[in-house]
Amino acid sequence: MRRIASEDLDHLTLGATLLGTGGGGDPFIAKLMVEQAIEDFGPIDVATLDELDDDALVATVAVLGAPTVIIEKIPSGSEFTDAVRALSSYMGRKIQAIMPVEVGGMNTLIPLAVATELGVPCLDADGMRRAFPQIEMTSFTLAGLSSSPMSLADEKGNKIAFETVSNQMGERLVRGSAMMLGLANAVSLYPMTVAQAKDAAVWGSMRYCSELGGHLRAVQRQEPDAWDRLLAFTGGRIAFEGKIIDLDRRTTTGFARGTVTIEDFADPTRTMRIEIQNELLLAIEDGRPVVTPPDLICMLDHETAEPITTETLAYGQRVRILALPCAPELKRGDWLDVVGPSAFGYDVDYVSLEG
Amino acid sequence: MRRIASEDLDHLTLGATLLGTGGGGDPFIAKLMVEQAIEDFGPIDVATLDELDDDALVATVAVLGAPTVIIEKIPSGSEFTDAVRALSSYMGRKIQAIMPVEVGGMNTLIPLAVATELGVPCLDADGMRRAFPQIEMTSFTLAGLSSSPMSLADEKGNKIAFETVSNQMGERLVRGSAMMLGLANAVSLYPMTVAQAKDAAVWGSMRYCSELGGHLRAVQRQEPDAWDRLLAFTGGRIAFEGKIIDLDRRTTTGFARGTVTIEDFADPTRTMRIEIQNELLLAIEDGRPVVTPPDLICMLDHETAEPITTETLAYGQRVRILALPCAPELKRGDWLDVVGPSAFGYDVDYVSLEG
Repeated sequence: MRRIASEDLDHLTLGATLLGTGGGGDPFIAKLMVEQAIEDFGPIDVATLDELDDDALVATVAVLGAPTVIIEKIPSGSEFTDAVRALSSYMGRKIQAIMPVEVGGMNTLIPLAVATELGVPCLDADGMRRAFPQIEMTSFTLAGLSSSPMSLADEKGNKIAFETVSNQMGERLVRGSAMMLGLANAVSLYPMTVAQAKDAAVWGSMRYCSELGGHLRAVQRQEPDAWDRLLAFTGGRIAFEGKIIDLDRRTTTGFARGTVTIEDFADPTRTMRIEIQNELLLAIEDGRPVVTPPDLICMLDHETAEPITTETLAYGQRVRILALPCAPELKRGDWLDVVGPSAFGYDVDYVSLEG
Repeated sequence: MRRIASEDLDHLTLGATLLGTGGGGDPFIAKLMVEQAIEDFGPIDVATLDELDDDALVATVAVLGAPTVIIEKIPSGSEFTDAVRALSSYMGRKIQAIMPVEVGGMNTLIPLAVATELGVPCLDADGMRRAFPQIEMTSFTLAGLSSSPMSLADEKGNKIAFETVSNQMGERLVRGSAMMLGLANAVSLYPMTVAQAKDAAVWGSMRYCSELGGHLRAVQRQEPDAWDRLLAFTGGRIAFEGKIIDLDRRTTTGFARGTVTIEDFADPTRTMRIEIQNELLLAIEDGRPVVTPPDLICMLDHETAEPITTETLAYGQRVRILALPCAPELKRGDWLDVVGPSAFGYDVDYVSLEG
């Protein structure tokens, strides 16, 4: 077990903003929730998969909605433990550990606050090691696990438990219900044993996120070779540098959707267009896909290296686009159908970042 | 306990069609389900509220959706027991008896089939003694009981349990979820003890329905004084006789909505307009409301005295409109807000049938 310290939390928050790939909600709000939870309920222990009993029951917990809504409808806190309790009620079993469903965005940190409030450890593992817009887009689905039973709760005390025949149906039902409850709700899903998590989860994603955050902090402090170290750690590359010349956003069918176009600083004939579905999902340079899901598209302020979320995008912003390879656990089984370009409705082939 | 015999079932089905007030789904389909269930699982016992332990847990079970959809998407059967089991799972308690939520339409008979499949008695009581389009419109709500925890299930195996802060919110959530699952689903709701049911339910509504069906069968057989006996039994009156001259129907926002206009046989300047929301809800004669909810508007074929459901309405049909006073249990507490005209969005005052 590793106890979360204040510096961890800073690096974790920064790393989570980067792995949010523009979406996933603002981790800074979640960081405040974690700090409050530590004050109210005591320190938080993060466990590796090896440290818990194989039979222990784990569930993920997250906020579900559109980031554009979440920044205006800040979680009150009790809906997360309500969601876990509703799941536990439905299953008739105690949840013995909490795990993030996505390490990326605010859902990286919320599980820490929930874990200490429930008095259980938080697992250092997740199902994405990035943010994705839909709940079935996980290494858990690729390993054949069901997202249900799962639960949804709002800040008023409404609770819903779901048991669905497929993870895709689970996404449809939970999203539809969240739209009725205000589109910024708590979900608890993918209940599994630690043994199942060992097979299906991305291991050590919290530690990865924290180290990534540390590297990015070094870049922001302009430490020598900081960019090189960040790129070496992630295996990523800088994909584009320029300024935003066009922007189109709308919140529809339960998602924040849009398109952002960036023009190269040096050569105005070169542009990159990025498609948004809560997250930055697909980068097209001069008509040719260059970064495709499940790989990560991260946008940073060109001067400060602060990650930019899609809801704060603005015309004229000067940005740097970072392309990071996804966790290897996302390339298993039918991964192209679940997390590849076609899963998001894009009619393009996957392009390897190594290619 | 009273064992359901074949003649009971015939009268119950006919009575249920009349109390369906044009909606509530076709009880004939439900009758076939009951006959099949008796063959598969054995005879059905109907109990009065006095015959069960006060502590026994009862839940209602019903089909929820738009009648226009239900006649094309016939219940498969397993979704009803799935709904009861999902509710039981969520509550962590065994459901010891089943009760109709509405005695009116197919939801009168479905609980009988579910009861024998689950091996529990069916209570002779309900929350409406008619059909209503929304789940919160019950004597249970008027007595302060919660409709949740409640559950929804479809024929594919998807199950949802809800715990809501109000019965109105329960209606919104369950209706929205049913729209996602095809708008013809099984619900189980209003779990309560027998002691609570004694206070909150309409007693003996199945027996009332069966006797009403017997009287209507006598009318159809043209037995002497049959109409007089039916009107004396119900306290109702014949409100209009004429032919349908206009009809407008649409399935929208989870309901079958519409308007039907009838012209008096003798005097073509006299017309009655009836507003539909799954059920026949409001009758307006020459601009003046004459039958208002919660009282019942029943439409019968003028020749055969066969009840007409809203989905089989047709231009030129010759009909008789029967107005029946509602169960007295629907006039308790804030009844005008829950089952009066304004609860359906009609800006008219309640008109007593005795007035």
